[in-house]
Amino acid sequence: MSKVHNFSAGPCILPQEVLQEASKAVLNFNNLDLSLIEISHRSKDFVEVMEKARSLVKELLGVPEGYQVLFLQGGASLGFLMAAYNFLPEGGKAAYINTGTWASKAIKEANRIGQAEVIASSEDKNFSYIPKGFGIPNDASYLHFTSNNTIFGTQFKQFPVSRVPLLCDMSSDIFSKKINVSDFDLIYAGAQKNMGPAGTTLYIVKESALGKTGNNIPAMLDFKTHIAKDSMFNTPPVFPVYVSMLTLQWLKDNGGVEWIEGVNQQKADAIYNEIDRNPLFKGVTAVEDRSIMNATFVLNDESHTEEFNKMWKDAGISGINGHRSVGGYRASMYNALPLSSVEALVDVMQEFERSKG
Amino acid sequence: MSKVHNFSAGPCILPQEVLQEASKAVLNFNNLDLSLIEISHRSKDFVEVMEKARSLVKELLGVPEGYQVLFLQGGASLGFLMAAYNFLPEGGKAAYINTGTWASKAIKEANRIGQAEVIASSEDKNFSYIPKGFGIPNDASYLHFTSNNTIFGTQFKQFPVSRVPLLCDMSSDIFSKKINVSDFDLIYAGAQKNMGPAGTTLYIVKESALGKTGNNIPAMLDFKTHIAKDSMFNTPPVFPVYVSMLTLQWLKDNGGVEWIEGVNQQKADAIYNEIDRNPLFKGVTAVEDRSIMNATFVLNDESHTEEFNKMWKDAGISGINGHRSVGGYRASMYNALPLSSVEALVDVMQEFERSKG
Repeated sequence: MSKVHNFSAGPCILPQEVLQEASKAVLNFNNLDLSLIEISHRSKDFVEVMEKARSLVKELLGVPEGYQVLFLQGGASLGFLMAAYNFLPEGGKAAYINTGTWASKAIKEANRIGQAEVIASSEDKNFSYIPKGFGIPNDASYLHFTSNNTIFGTQFKQFPVSRVPLLCDMSSDIFSKKINVSDFDLIYAGAQKNMGPAGTTLYIVKESALGKTGNNIPAMLDFKTHIAKDSMFNTPPVFPVYVSMLTLQWLKDNGGVEWIEGVNQQKADAIYNEIDRNPLFKGVTAVEDRSIMNATFVLNDESHTEEFNKMWKDAGISGINGHRSVGGYRASMYNALPLSSVEALVDVMQEFERSKG
Repeated sequence: MSKVHNFSAGPCILPQEVLQEASKAVLNFNNLDLSLIEISHRSKDFVEVMEKARSLVKELLGVPEGYQVLFLQGGASLGFLMAAYNFLPEGGKAAYINTGTWASKAIKEANRIGQAEVIASSEDKNFSYIPKGFGIPNDASYLHFTSNNTIFGTQFKQFPVSRVPLLCDMSSDIFSKKINVSDFDLIYAGAQKNMGPAGTTLYIVKESALGKTGNNIPAMLDFKTHIAKDSMFNTPPVFPVYVSMLTLQWLKDNGGVEWIEGVNQQKADAIYNEIDRNPLFKGVTAVEDRSIMNATFVLNDESHTEEFNKMWKDAGISGINGHRSVGGYRASMYNALPLSSVEALVDVMQEFERSKG
């Protein structure tokens, strides 16, 4: 077990067992006397990795029939464009909820294909809450939203109920809790939070919803291209897919999404209880919209910053500086972060309180 | 040193020292007590990796002032689209040389933006040669070609001389020999041959040539986006970039491109001499266009296939089955393949000849 409490916002902590296995595979994979990264992606050994990764996603999230699972490249940033290309007819209209940085980028890309109508936004309060009570236009091709905002620390606790198809960027909370995949036409997620290392992006797409826009979609941006080739239209990002597979296997072996949902709630309760209890700190976001993945908080007295920073650094805590657009602190508690790391942070916050008398 | 002679066509053999170092970094990178793949890409430690990778490319290829080096995602397959988006005005015309699979895919993507005029093709002879003596239209936005075709085993020995800008997919022979970067407006290459593992793509782009198409380019497909953010507009593929950096450092430490060009010529001479000398084999491509990277050859008598296959497999040789569209054999001899592996293959070919009396 690493001695560092790794609260990095992503790329982020991965299970120690996964890192051990991945390190070995870089030298000798499947006893082939070859590295994982120097064999053909068309070899039986790698095709098995890809297929196992795809089937673990299906199993862990209960993906129903009619959906396809793909591991592609480009990050959610390319996903913003692919979502629009595959679901928004040129010149058509789609509804978007703007909860900050990532949602804003998705809106920008959709506006290149058609019109992205922002039907709800929390920009008025620096994205510190999740908009509620909005109407969804029936003539929109879909409603797009970001399930969790890593920067501000907000999260949809209930997904919008919509008559138009739902498209969701779940980069930072996928596999953290149970979801109902059949509510969505598209779910996508960069791997580098709960799933694996940076360099691959997961897409879960409803196959019957594709091919309806009439758009002339470039091959690499067309989900149908990748579905037809079992997620291997071109050379896949071999190592990121392999480590994602190992991480999903780790999740399954430990009890799956149901298990981790409980652990994640315990971690979130521990940190938020301390933020609310400790008079030296306050939370940044609306209480009801607090992210289970990323807890944002600030010191009530900023002049204590240096002193507090020294304390958590001395305790082996890493990666809790807040994003520049929010300031303060952000404790990212992705799946692989153990409860003991959160407890270590809580201890420091309490010790800090005692030191202030 | 691996006991397997790894002739894989890509992903392919990487230097053993690089694999050792990469394996360690997956467990503990830079003595941080953290894995390379679980730290922020904005951390000082990773930013240094990215900057070192970019500067090694500049150093090894003598990239002149005014060019930018980027490590992106998506493979050359996405590069086909990006090349056209950034250099071909919508509805405009570009010239393409068709030397097979990869060139054909590049042509297809360019035709979505404008008109890709195929000015030369070797399709008439199953792409077994490099077209010569063609004219290049002066009104084309650029001339695009693939420097080496891995499937058929052909390679441009001299690059076209052109008054219009040159764009080149060098995926399978970059860093194998000296090139004159200033002859090109764009060079791009998937990493998984001479540079590193699958999952990142190198772009070397002449900055002053950008921004002239008037195209509304999606953020992720626009080279200017990535240049403005020092190749970190979004989370980069951390591990593939790191291993590419290590491989480029290995190349530099051993004498750079000048050194490897000599080694590669030795390897190519060894295999082609044997193909030409041994009465049981024949080469597939035009002699003057033979690739230094991928030697394709067939048995004169196909009934010997099973026997020959057993012999090379018994000798620890891996990955020389030809691509399905060519058949026979393909010995890929990328930078990290030692001359001794080629000699092992030549030995088998000679032993096979003796066995046939």
